Amino acid sequence: MPIIEAVGIVSKPRSELAARIVPELIRWLEERGVRVRLDVETAQYAQRTAGLPRPQVHEGTQLVIVLGGDGTLLSAARAIGAGDIPLFAVNMGGLGFLTAMTVEELYPQLERALDGDFRVGRRRMLHCDHRRNGELLASFDALNDVVLTKFEIARMIDLEAHIDGHFVCIYRADGLIIATPTGSTAYSLSAGGPIVFPSVGAIVITPICPHTLTNRPVVLDDASVVQVTNLSDDSATYLTIDGQVGELLKRGDQVVCRRSENSISLVRPPDMMFFDVLREKLKWGGR
Amino acid sequence: MPIIEAVGIVSKPRSELAARIVPELIRWLEERGVRVRLDVETAQYAQRTAGLPRPQVHEGTQLVIVLGGDGTLLSAARAIGAGDIPLFAVNMGGLGFLTAMTVEELYPQLERALDGDFRVGRRRMLHCDHRRNGELLASFDALNDVVLTKFEIARMIDLEAHIDGHFVCIYRADGLIIATPTGSTAYSLSAGGPIVFPSVGAIVITPICPHTLTNRPVVLDDASVVQVTNLSDDSATYLTIDGQVGELLKRGDQVVCRRSENSISLVRPPDMMFFDVLREKLKWGGR
Amino acid sequence: MPIIEAVGIVSKPRSELAARIVPELIRWLEERGVRVRLDVETAQYAQRTAGLPRPQVHEGTQLVIVLGGDGTLLSAARAIGAGDIPLFAVNMGGLGFLTAMTVEELYPQLERALDGDFRVGRRRMLHCDHRRNGELLASFDALNDVVLTKFEIARMIDLEAHIDGHFVCIYRADGLIIATPTGSTAYSLSAGGPIVFPSVGAIVITPICPHTLTNRPVVLDDASVVQVTNLSDDSATYLTIDGQVGELLKRGDQVVCRRSENSISLVRPPDMMFFDVLREKLKWGGR
Amino acid sequence: MPIIEAVGIVSKPRSELAARIVPELIRWLEERGVRVRLDVETAQYAQRTAGLPRPQVHEGTQLVIVLGGDGTLLSAARAIGAGDIPLFAVNMGGLGFLTAMTVEELYPQLERALDGDFRVGRRRMLHCDHRRNGELLASFDALNDVVLTKFEIARMIDLEAHIDGHFVCIYRADGLIIATPTGSTAYSLSAGGPIVFPSVGAIVITPICPHTLTNRPVVLDDASVVQVTNLSDDSATYLTIDGQVGELLKRGDQVVCRRSENSISLVRPPDMMFFDVLREKLKWGGR
Repeated sequence: MPIIEAVGIVSKPRSELAARIVPELIRWLEERGVRVRLDVETAQYAQRTAGLPRPQVHEGTQLVIVLGGDGTLLSAARAIGAGDIPLFAVNMGGLGFLTAMTVEELYPQLERALDGDFRVGRRRMLHCDHRRNGELLASFDALNDVVLTKFEIARMIDLEAHIDGHFVCIYRADGLIIATPTGSTAYSLSAGGPIVFPSVGAIVITPICPHTLTNRPVVLDDASVVQVTNLSDDSATYLTIDGQVGELLKRGDQVVCRRSENSISLVRPPDMMFFDVLREKLKWGGR
Repeated sequence: MPIIEAVGIVSKPRSELAARIVPELIRWLEERGVRVRLDVETAQYAQRTAGLPRPQVHEGTQLVIVLGGDGTLLSAARAIGAGDIPLFAVNMGGLGFLTAMTVEELYPQLERALDGDFRVGRRRMLHCDHRRNGELLASFDALNDVVLTKFEIARMIDLEAHIDGHFVCIYRADGLIIATPTGSTAYSLSAGGPIVFPSVGAIVITPICPHTLTNRPVVLDDASVVQVTNLSDDSATYLTIDGQVGELLKRGDQVVCRRSENSISLVRPPDMMFFDVLREKLKWGGR
Repeated sequence: MPIIEAVGIVSKPRSELAARIVPELIRWLEERGVRVRLDVETAQYAQRTAGLPRPQVHEGTQLVIVLGGDGTLLSAARAIGAGDIPLFAVNMGGLGFLTAMTVEELYPQLERALDGDFRVGRRRMLHCDHRRNGELLASFDALNDVVLTKFEIARMIDLEAHIDGHFVCIYRADGLIIATPTGSTAYSLSAGGPIVFPSVGAIVITPICPHTLTNRPVVLDDASVVQVTNLSDDSATYLTIDGQVGELLKRGDQVVCRRSENSISLVRPPDMMFFDVLREKLKWGGR
Repeated sequence: MPIIEAVGIVSKPRSELAARIVPELIRWLEERGVRVRLDVETAQYAQRTAGLPRPQVHEGTQLVIVLGGDGTLLSAARAIGAGDIPLFAVNMGGLGFLTAMTVEELYPQLERALDGDFRVGRRRMLHCDHRRNGELLASFDALNDVVLTKFEIARMIDLEAHIDGHFVCIYRADGLIIATPTGSTAYSLSAGGPIVFPSVGAIVITPICPHTLTNRPVVLDDASVVQVTNLSDDSATYLTIDGQVGELLKRGDQVVCRRSENSISLVRPPDMMFFDVLREKLKWGGR
């Protein structure tokens, strides 16, 4: 692992905590001879003029610090995408599943990380194509999930699912979540899905309020291709990636999901295991 | 029970089965000296000129025949509302929870019903007030449920619930269903709610994909008043009554639900019990 | 409400906290001229010779103090049964659903209670008959639940359920819980049942790990009679009342449950509502 | 794939259908020059004297026909274990998840199989060690699941789980299911677990009626080692393998599960996919 010479910083907007931390963090880094590249939000907190668009922050760096919650990380992951640069994610609020590093651990861990002394967890992304009449309209990489939901008014939608070309069933539901193991602790969990360890090579399909009560969550091999065809009317179904970007589907539109070529590298807190986060977040200690 | 002299007929739109049944049903009734009053859809099927608005169909009748599924019945119930006239609901498709009478049973059962020989099940409705800044914007009666859901894009909404003036919790979820026992087998069931017998004096509160995993469905005494305050932004939360009518909420809007003064009377198939429908619809026989 | 002249005390066995509290509580009561009647455990803590069997503790008293958790209260409730004497339940450990009064609140609340200044919540019990070949083998009153479970080895049992004489279904499951609203927050909740307010006149039927995935919890009118026939082999099914007493069933045995004539009166903490306990116990604040 | 010269047959006991099929099946095979080896049950149906113990049936054969349901297959799989011989499983009753071949398909499929024309699905097994004070008491291979449940009376048990040496949590529950993907559609599904495709390299941990409501099913990488320590009293916890063999645990006993070296090869019906079985068994067509 090379010594860190340049670091990108991506920050959550409108965070008082980030506003306080950013100036001192930059000073701390520059005192150690580390060059910094800031996104627009971070530049504002630092009261520096030039902020970079997020997709450029990581260029030429060996580490990207993400200040915020899981949402900021998701957004940073999508912006940086294919890059192989480790993300050092610090939680600004409560504990996150992805951002398990606390503000207290920031400097001690960063000190070690600058020397290349850190563990990295790889998180596979899910690639999603949106097709209409055989034509590719858009492609996305999701770290958490690809979600199809009913749009606007409280009615069910019909989604026909195929896996590796084989018919599965028609889901009649509020929606369908196609999640990575990383996303299994996000929306999918609220919809009744299982907790899947990051190391499992799997895709999780969790229906939202299915009409058919036996339509339980399904865990697939991540070598599978999941194809969902929207059988509902135009403007009834909405496609969302990581809860952040999305678009409206037309009847007959297809959403095709498969393991992405891209993944992110997350710097992991040294003594924090996945189950420690579960215990803490889900309060597995007591009832 | 008086002998039936006049019958209203309400039909599902665009139903081939209704189109076939309506003319012969009207002939059958008129041959027996029963006067008929038709809503607009039924009049079309009958190829008669004058159809009545649904809220007028029941006037002067002693029975209203509803041809359609649960959706047609919900809509008829809301239109007829306070009236005390029994609804004779015939299912045009699969078995419904509300419309358990099949087309085969139509004439034999109707024959008996015209002589006043029928059992009636009373279904309480839920009254719902939509308030803004203390002002009453709209009132509704729901036979199934009052639903608050996130509008448009896949994000959670925050709903603060009080029961009889006591703070319950802030639901952070896709939405919240406040259901009658009748509605417990509809949307609430898909969202994980219990099956509540029609005779229980209860209101069911079922969260949709709650962020807090312990936020389980709650069954309240129907003497309770449930008040839900929308803590989410304008245009994030949508209010829907029986899955049919609805409106957008603003931040701070309140939805107050209590037992309605209104109820409907459903003519029940003679040998069909609630559990027979459950077994049939939910396939309780096998796995 | 009459002034309290005599108080019974029932204590959890082997509780260090009870051992510490009992002597000072007795002194505190006797200083105020209140006569005390102690069960065997309490007498041991007090180092007094004569302890009474639990079913006699309440005789001639106007209040029974229960020191322990929900388990101690369940046991006291069954012992005292038909009596109309309020139970003043103090939790010795974590918060209980039934024993919501903390040790800190003991003396201030008791002070007021001795003057008759207290609110009482009534909790209906469930009556259960165990029949074999038409003969009554045993009767029980349950405050929480009547449970039929598989005995010994990991196999499913078959239980045929009738409600008010009408066939419901054959449950093929690990077991079946028939719960009061009070019991809805105990075992039934772990098995996936809803939370039912104490004021609802209901019986909850919750299957345990049902083979048929659509066999969801059912909430009945508490005027209903629930009859469960054991279709499994002798020694495969076990009947348990409130998780405390039980017996083995033979094939063909019937368990018949209906609302009991008995109920208990719980002294309620003055400002503690049911939902406050839910929020605290189920951590409804956060995820 | 070599031409089949010898076939083993394992049959479900006391099956009228097996009794009818076995004699004609043996004749059919012998007419084609195929040598047969029969287990004790099959020999009885065939009215032949010598039946073999199940663990010897497969010796020298290239295919083992299993006549029965999933239970018979589980038992055959454990008996044959390490062998690499394909199992040709024919369902004698309703459709099974493992035994998806129907009696109608028996001869046409077998005809093709004798020529080596068949597809095989590999099902990984789970290896389970039962340890006491560091000593190995017994070892098992499970095709479906390793289950720890409360024994006898209706109380919870406490089970401490570690994964790869890291503390997970103490499960307070009716029990804990550690399942293979194959077992995910068996007991684990009834307890609320997800459906996991056979091709996923995973272990599923599903708690049974957990006291902590957030204790949701977990899907692990099958390279993981799951260690469960029984914290409950002697004779409170029972260990069961595939619902068929088991033993009582003492306090402190450890059950250690990891991917087995063994797996079975299932002959798959030619046009039947996993999802076809799901749709059929779980009635995913309708509600």
